[in-house]
Amino acid sequence: MSDLKPHILQKFPAWQWLQHYSPVKFKSDVLASLIVIAMLVPQGMAYSMLAGLPPIMGLYASILPMIVYALIGGSSTLSIGPVAIISMMTFATLNPLFEVGSPVYIEAATLLALMVGLISLLLGVLRFGFLIQLISHPVIKSFIIASALLIALGQFKFLVDVPLKANNIPEFVLSLWEYLSLTHIASLIFGVLAILFLIYVPKILATQSIQSRFGSTAFLSKALPLILVVISIASVMLFDLQNVGIKTVGEIPSGFPPLSFPHWNWELVQTLLPGATMIAMISFVESLSIAQATALQQRSQLNSNQELIALGLANLSAGVSSAFPVTGSLSRTVVNADAGAKTPMAGVLSSLLIIIVSLYFTGFFQDLPLVILAATIIVSIWKLVDFKPFVDTWRYSKADGIAMWVTFFGVVCIDISTGLIIGIISTFILLLWRISRPHIAVIGLVEGTQHFRNVQRHHVYTAPHILSLRIDENISFLNANTLKGFLINEVSENIDLEHVVINCSSVSSIDLSALEMLEDLNAELSKLDIRLHFSEVKGPVMDKLQHSKLLTHLSGQIFLTHYQAITELATASSEYQI
Amino acid sequence: MSDLKPHILQKFPAWQWLQHYSPVKFKSDVLASLIVIAMLVPQGMAYSMLAGLPPIMGLYASILPMIVYALIGGSSTLSIGPVAIISMMTFATLNPLFEVGSPVYIEAATLLALMVGLISLLLGVLRFGFLIQLISHPVIKSFIIASALLIALGQFKFLVDVPLKANNIPEFVLSLWEYLSLTHIASLIFGVLAILFLIYVPKILATQSIQSRFGSTAFLSKALPLILVVISIASVMLFDLQNVGIKTVGEIPSGFPPLSFPHWNWELVQTLLPGATMIAMISFVESLSIAQATALQQRSQLNSNQELIALGLANLSAGVSSAFPVTGSLSRTVVNADAGAKTPMAGVLSSLLIIIVSLYFTGFFQDLPLVILAATIIVSIWKLVDFKPFVDTWRYSKADGIAMWVTFFGVVCIDISTGLIIGIISTFILLLWRISRPHIAVIGLVEGTQHFRNVQRHHVYTAPHILSLRIDENISFLNANTLKGFLINEVSENIDLEHVVINCSSVSSIDLSALEMLEDLNAELSKLDIRLHFSEVKGPVMDKLQHSKLLTHLSGQIFLTHYQAITELATASSEYQI
Repeated sequence: MSDLKPHILQKFPAWQWLQHYSPVKFKSDVLASLIVIAMLVPQGMAYSMLAGLPPIMGLYASILPMIVYALIGGSSTLSIGPVAIISMMTFATLNPLFEVGSPVYIEAATLLALMVGLISLLLGVLRFGFLIQLISHPVIKSFIIASALLIALGQFKFLVDVPLKANNIPEFVLSLWEYLSLTHIASLIFGVLAILFLIYVPKILATQSIQSRFGSTAFLSKALPLILVVISIASVMLFDLQNVGIKTVGEIPSGFPPLSFPHWNWELVQTLLPGATMIAMISFVESLSIAQATALQQRSQLNSNQELIALGLANLSAGVSSAFPVTGSLSRTVVNADAGAKTPMAGVLSSLLIIIVSLYFTGFFQDLPLVILAATIIVSIWKLVDFKPFVDTWRYSKADGIAMWVTFFGVVCIDISTGLIIGIISTFILLLWRISRPHIAVIGLVEGTQHFRNVQRHHVYTAPHILSLRIDENISFLNANTLKGFLINEVSENIDLEHVVINCSSVSSIDLSALEMLEDLNAELSKLDIRLHFSEVKGPVMDKLQHSKLLTHLSGQIFLTHYQAITELATASSEYQI
Repeated sequence: MSDLKPHILQKFPAWQWLQHYSPVKFKSDVLASLIVIAMLVPQGMAYSMLAGLPPIMGLYASILPMIVYALIGGSSTLSIGPVAIISMMTFATLNPLFEVGSPVYIEAATLLALMVGLISLLLGVLRFGFLIQLISHPVIKSFIIASALLIALGQFKFLVDVPLKANNIPEFVLSLWEYLSLTHIASLIFGVLAILFLIYVPKILATQSIQSRFGSTAFLSKALPLILVVISIASVMLFDLQNVGIKTVGEIPSGFPPLSFPHWNWELVQTLLPGATMIAMISFVESLSIAQATALQQRSQLNSNQELIALGLANLSAGVSSAFPVTGSLSRTVVNADAGAKTPMAGVLSSLLIIIVSLYFTGFFQDLPLVILAATIIVSIWKLVDFKPFVDTWRYSKADGIAMWVTFFGVVCIDISTGLIIGIISTFILLLWRISRPHIAVIGLVEGTQHFRNVQRHHVYTAPHILSLRIDENISFLNANTLKGFLINEVSENIDLEHVVINCSSVSSIDLSALEMLEDLNAELSKLDIRLHFSEVKGPVMDKLQHSKLLTHLSGQIFLTHYQAITELATASSEYQI
């Protein structure tokens, strides 16, 4: 029992950094937390609205999850909380089931966070962190671009103040056609002004003349959304803009987030399960890639299963504190690190500040126009809508390009979750397709060397009674038959053939189907007096073949190098010479 | 237009062999067809009964399909017709839908043949022949063993003459428990005698004393089922066995098979689609493996898509001639080849003989006891029930072993088609699992050589400022993160690190996800003043990387050989020496 304690404490990275905490680190952490909070408040409220939830829940989602991750997570600067993609997925999961913003909708959102937490926790405990790899980069990228497009379109309804739908593009176009004539002009003007502010003020701040006169304006840029919020609240109060029909956030309850376990309705849980699984996957993908980058910079180890557990517990805490699914935020993590955060204490301090905001400053936000939050989302998300990756990917690899387009059209034409699933499945099919069509080359000797190259690409020497070939893929059931078919056709075309030599330098595994194919081939070729040989077989492959029928019945030999094989077989036959 | 004719004729292998046909070949073909017919008549009727259909349909299934394959198929000896596994799958597909043997059941069987034909034809025309490879050997083997077990158990009901069910083993055990007391003793005795006859007479015929006295008895052995049929019909007629309750085949209509297009019911087609797809897959697997073996022996080319088309048209012809799904029969093909068949004409002659049987000899079979057909099936199928492959496979590869057991339990505990699907899916999951956990080795130099080996397995030299590693798998989204995680941990453990060299000798492809991972890694390592290098990159991989950011931003170099990399990097740093 004595060594159980350190073992358990090892599971809490907080144990490590708290022991070496110092006033200097505290000072850095306080500063970083202040800067992050300026971003977090408007982002939290905006992403909560994006999820179809009351803005206050965005603050709740930044309190407990952040503290939980600080205690258990492996990255010292990762900022956990509401994130646009996850909010959008939450909306896409719940929107078809309940009226947006209704009490059952809100309850379902907390249940969803709880489920995402449980799924992540389970996967982490079972050490299934590697499952993250099921989603390829092209799919993720395309998913994010397509979702960003849908998110931006989804915010359009606040800009024009008509009930547009945006679960997919066809739906959006139809509802735009139906409602566009009802556009609320005052909201549109206010929204467009806000968008212009958010786009052009950072550009002005970044110009040479401003920078040289006022020094670095990086922090000011990050605080712009908060400044816009303050300005717009002031304008609403001063000019009584509610009278011209500008909709505002309205009354926000103050106080600690209500702690309660969401009602566990089995039927609802089943309905939410696919959505919750997708959210868990994507939140892990997002969070881990950020955590990995920070871990590498600090030369610290990172255990992906531990990260899954931390993210799971963070979401569980969101579920029991009236919040919604959360994950690591790239933008806030970068700001946190740049602002000098030294330890996860920065995150803890941010969440303490958010508590203060939700205790004493919620009244301040009640006059915040919804269109301002929408503008914040549109500007921050529109940067992601970029079609260059589609072109680049297509150029690098057709298979990856296809996966990207399939995902994109799945997301924008059906819906966000279905699109993701279709995208993931398409990558598996494309992978199996590639494996099933391995590159098989007939090879010959390059003059004056011991190297062998493809006869179709290079000028090389071959002997008519020897067929040399190389397969550039592990041999498995998916391609065993391709190899066999290739050989049958080669054999039928060459009447002088006496030896077939398969170069296995690229083969790291041979499964049973492939082994049996080779056994059959050996037997069939024997009947034709053609001997089958292998060259450059790797150690682990040889180990497995050791007791197989293939080796005991092999008509030919195993050669260490292909050159050795060809020279021996060529000289053994008096009729032919290389 | 002038060269279109040879092009079209090329699609008909019959065009080739008919041009070189001779009286000598004809004589051989006639003899072979006579021997095959002795097997085909009892097998056809038995497998028809196995499919839950009237025995005459087994004869119908041997007429048109055989002629069609002879004209289009690529194998000169393949014998197409009713086959046990396919009949069993037909039964498993139709049994849950209709009363066995009812007119709708029979119509659905012909519709099924038509659908199997259309699916095969479509896959062949679209050149999807490679899809056959989706089913691995362990799955096929296990599927055949488990199906054979179910087929044998399914015939048990004729032996005891009570309505046992055998869609899966639990069902069989339950119905055995319920009905065993009602066993019909006379049928059981007759059946057991037939089984003993079929098991022991071949053994006696194969003994030395018989062989030396009467010469080869191979043909006689093949004709034993037919002899048994004749004996049992004679006994029924002589001893009036129907009076003791022995059930017989009953009246069989004579004449040509009725040609008609089965009623195309869309709803039924949808219901049958999964079953028809599975049957098409399995019939192609069976047929192609037999055709490949014969093609190799005759040194003839074989196009798998052409085979799919031939098999598709054969099944289409079965569908319009009151038959049921067919495929190539291994036992009859072997007998056909051994009996000296020279061309597909042997198959055509067999089918002409079957026409004669169905025109003039059906009356002869009406007194054939059902229990005799059941005994024929049990004896021929029981040989397949063998658990040694499970042990051997498990010993060679755990993944293949798991796939076998999953398939087996899927088939015997759920049903034949579901089991097959579960088995196929399990092989994909296991393959993805293997790819996602590639073998990554830290390697070092073997003294006195230029070879590098795993530091954990061999005594090798390494330099503290160089990390050499080799990944034994193509790098893709499934394992990019594993490689990255491995590197992050290695970097965190080695504070002196200056160079990372990845040996790519086993890497034949790098997908976009992997490329981006490497780009990220390069950038992150640069910040730590660690340079990333690659060695032994293959030509095709290098071609693709050529224009990537990875190469333009690479902090290190690309080395032709790993030895070159290590010597250059070791001497460049004055501090260290290998």
